[in-house]
Amino acid sequence: MTQDAVLARIDADLPQAIARLQDLLRIRSISTDPKFADDCQKAAEWLAEDLRGIGMDAAVRPTPGHPMVVGHMDGPEGAPHLLFYGHYDVQPVDPLELWDSDPFDPAVVDGPHGQTIRARGASDDKGQLMTFVEACRAWVAEHGALPCKLTVLFEGEEESSSPSLVPFLTDNADELRADLALICDTGLFQSKTPAIMTMLRGMVAEEVTIHAARRDLHSGMYGGVAMNPIRVLTRILGGMHDDQGRVTIPHFYDGVPEIDAETAAQWEALGFDHAAFLGDVGLSVPAGEQDRTPLEMIWSRPTAEINGIWGGYTGAGFKTVLPAQAHAKISFRLVGDQEPAAIRQNFRDWVTAHLPEDCTAEFKLSGGAGGSRMTTDHPLFEKTRDALTEEWGDTAAFIGCGGSIPIAGHFKEILGMDALLTGFAKDDDNIHSPNEKYDIDSFHKGIRSWARMLGKLA
Amino acid sequence: MTQDAVLARIDADLPQAIARLQDLLRIRSISTDPKFADDCQKAAEWLAEDLRGIGMDAAVRPTPGHPMVVGHMDGPEGAPHLLFYGHYDVQPVDPLELWDSDPFDPAVVDGPHGQTIRARGASDDKGQLMTFVEACRAWVAEHGALPCKLTVLFEGEEESSSPSLVPFLTDNADELRADLALICDTGLFQSKTPAIMTMLRGMVAEEVTIHAARRDLHSGMYGGVAMNPIRVLTRILGGMHDDQGRVTIPHFYDGVPEIDAETAAQWEALGFDHAAFLGDVGLSVPAGEQDRTPLEMIWSRPTAEINGIWGGYTGAGFKTVLPAQAHAKISFRLVGDQEPAAIRQNFRDWVTAHLPEDCTAEFKLSGGAGGSRMTTDHPLFEKTRDALTEEWGDTAAFIGCGGSIPIAGHFKEILGMDALLTGFAKDDDNIHSPNEKYDIDSFHKGIRSWARMLGKLA
Repeated sequence: MTQDAVLARIDADLPQAIARLQDLLRIRSISTDPKFADDCQKAAEWLAEDLRGIGMDAAVRPTPGHPMVVGHMDGPEGAPHLLFYGHYDVQPVDPLELWDSDPFDPAVVDGPHGQTIRARGASDDKGQLMTFVEACRAWVAEHGALPCKLTVLFEGEEESSSPSLVPFLTDNADELRADLALICDTGLFQSKTPAIMTMLRGMVAEEVTIHAARRDLHSGMYGGVAMNPIRVLTRILGGMHDDQGRVTIPHFYDGVPEIDAETAAQWEALGFDHAAFLGDVGLSVPAGEQDRTPLEMIWSRPTAEINGIWGGYTGAGFKTVLPAQAHAKISFRLVGDQEPAAIRQNFRDWVTAHLPEDCTAEFKLSGGAGGSRMTTDHPLFEKTRDALTEEWGDTAAFIGCGGSIPIAGHFKEILGMDALLTGFAKDDDNIHSPNEKYDIDSFHKGIRSWARMLGKLA
Repeated sequence: MTQDAVLARIDADLPQAIARLQDLLRIRSISTDPKFADDCQKAAEWLAEDLRGIGMDAAVRPTPGHPMVVGHMDGPEGAPHLLFYGHYDVQPVDPLELWDSDPFDPAVVDGPHGQTIRARGASDDKGQLMTFVEACRAWVAEHGALPCKLTVLFEGEEESSSPSLVPFLTDNADELRADLALICDTGLFQSKTPAIMTMLRGMVAEEVTIHAARRDLHSGMYGGVAMNPIRVLTRILGGMHDDQGRVTIPHFYDGVPEIDAETAAQWEALGFDHAAFLGDVGLSVPAGEQDRTPLEMIWSRPTAEINGIWGGYTGAGFKTVLPAQAHAKISFRLVGDQEPAAIRQNFRDWVTAHLPEDCTAEFKLSGGAGGSRMTTDHPLFEKTRDALTEEWGDTAAFIGCGGSIPIAGHFKEILGMDALLTGFAKDDDNIHSPNEKYDIDSFHKGIRSWARMLGKLA
């Protein structure tokens, strides 16, 4: 059988596949920080070169930000045309002192579930996108061709709100349009059950700066009489949730749907162990709206989170300063029909309405996209589900996701195609955190899963 | 007249005095940051050498932290013994980008009130302590001796809570005890009227860290279900003041006295222009307890201020992280009989009582001292007041001060002597802020003031 030969080749080639992933992980492609722009370019070039090595017609394509990588390879007459998407950029690495090894010197080490690769981007998303590339490599090596027609799109700005993505998709719509998009940037359910994401939260991100005095002041000379912008900022943001964990910004819940009975039943059947999920990271009490289940809190309810806050003196020792400004980065995860523009405006209005005299607020937009729901009745969805089930033993689940992968919505809106999101990350992969890792078995079985899916979709 | 000759010499020597101050200002003696320890040592040595140049018996004296400088010089039989105190350490300089010139390359530039010296420490406290040193230099140069017996004590940890001060005073009490302490670390009232501080606020400083999850989390994967420590910190600190500006920590106002009628009348007579005071820094509304006058807010009412806050991602761009920890630096200005230890404990208890499950708080002490009131009926106080009045033309005022100069309390408690606090800083000197400056007329008339005071006290 053709598929068995591909799977055997994947097994035999695993050490080389790991070495290739390590090469990619050594490139410091942090997209949010301009000083790593050259590294992002380098990662794109590395990928284009690797795709050409498989036999694809691949190139690095410039954007006003970090480049895209686009590759094409023909498939058999009548086979579907697939678009595979992944991102080569990674999150910043701070706090660096909490890493057990250099985040850009990928080490294969013993992990909680066997061997694992520790590095920034190992799981999000370099390791995941390479599962697909390695599956293609094995197919082509074994059969001289892929079973489907393929377009590959690798982005370099996913971790920094994808400013160039929509223009690029719009400008290259005819080239990129396919029958189905495959997106590999998600995880196994509860770290073991293969899963297809059918519900994603969107995101709006805002940076707010509260201005008070026109310069920093001495807290002895002015303390008590001059307004302290940190006091204003904590007072406003401290009131963003009520005692029940509900967001207090007016109209925040406009457009938030209740999940239907079928979905509720399926989620109930998943038997989500929230005690274990939280216990893994040292927590025990679900922190969201107290009348919602933990899965709802993550998958189907919107959030308001302060992702960063700073102001005044934050170095060693003490400085008795009343700063002129205080800052926070805030993100909202959106669901259903919540409107990103309305959420942003309502937040800004709410902050402004709570400012005392003498203070002003300055806002900086940082991207935004609504939540999305996938059509689960696409004819190719069931085939993918079967392939995943065969590889992992457990029936693949249709699940929700708390994260934001706006690309799925863009594919639908701009290219008119559905997207299928699957991936092999585990809950303890520490993505966006120190000691990010990707288990060798996620990587290995991930490659095998894509090989099976390519076979089934053909 | 002996004093006129001293004053004339001071006038003639001003350019050299400015050059000496500039030499001292070039030394980066930031006490709170351990990497400047060598610079603190260097500043102490520079001062000891300068005092020896005047003819004093002066030495750098080690402590477990930054060294003290102690100098002695005999005076005429029967003349009082004075102890002069100042500090050679300075505040950190960040945010550096807001300085118009290198904070350690003192420039004489045009300021709002004529020529001024711009540098970190120009006003707080190197420029001020040098007013006294220069006055001594002129007396000795003119008369071969000082009119009083003198001990000088320069500290190097005033800006970092003075950890070595109390042990040093205790260990060297007999050597340091004098008839009266003179402390030069304060300012003119409303930038023009000479003033003697008779009421000082104390200070307790605390650093608090809120711990939630045991590692940073992805706000997509965990947002909504995992407790965010920044949310907890803003919620707690956002409730530290009520709508009327009153601090809500239980028992915070225990031991806070009302000012007496005489003091109230004297303060009223000062005609404090709070609109101008706040307007200078871009503010207009007194931010403290709304039933208090602005002078009370600064001089006789306690405060709770957040001097620094940080947590999560604070760099360029955006990172959708739920951090494991969030931090704040908080200081309390104390008055009357407020007990530093009780204030600290009440704050800790209050924070702890407001923690949700899954969160813990860690506290780091950062020094503390109660407020103090000077005896204004000391026989030497009136003489000093007369000297100041003669130099400046306006009657010197007895005033309060919002800042904390715990040394005055220590002199009373450990050495049993009263302290007289006067100085020549202006409200717009930007102490602790970018572009700190000391006006040449503060420096010049400050030197002349001390020369007159030494004469009167003799």
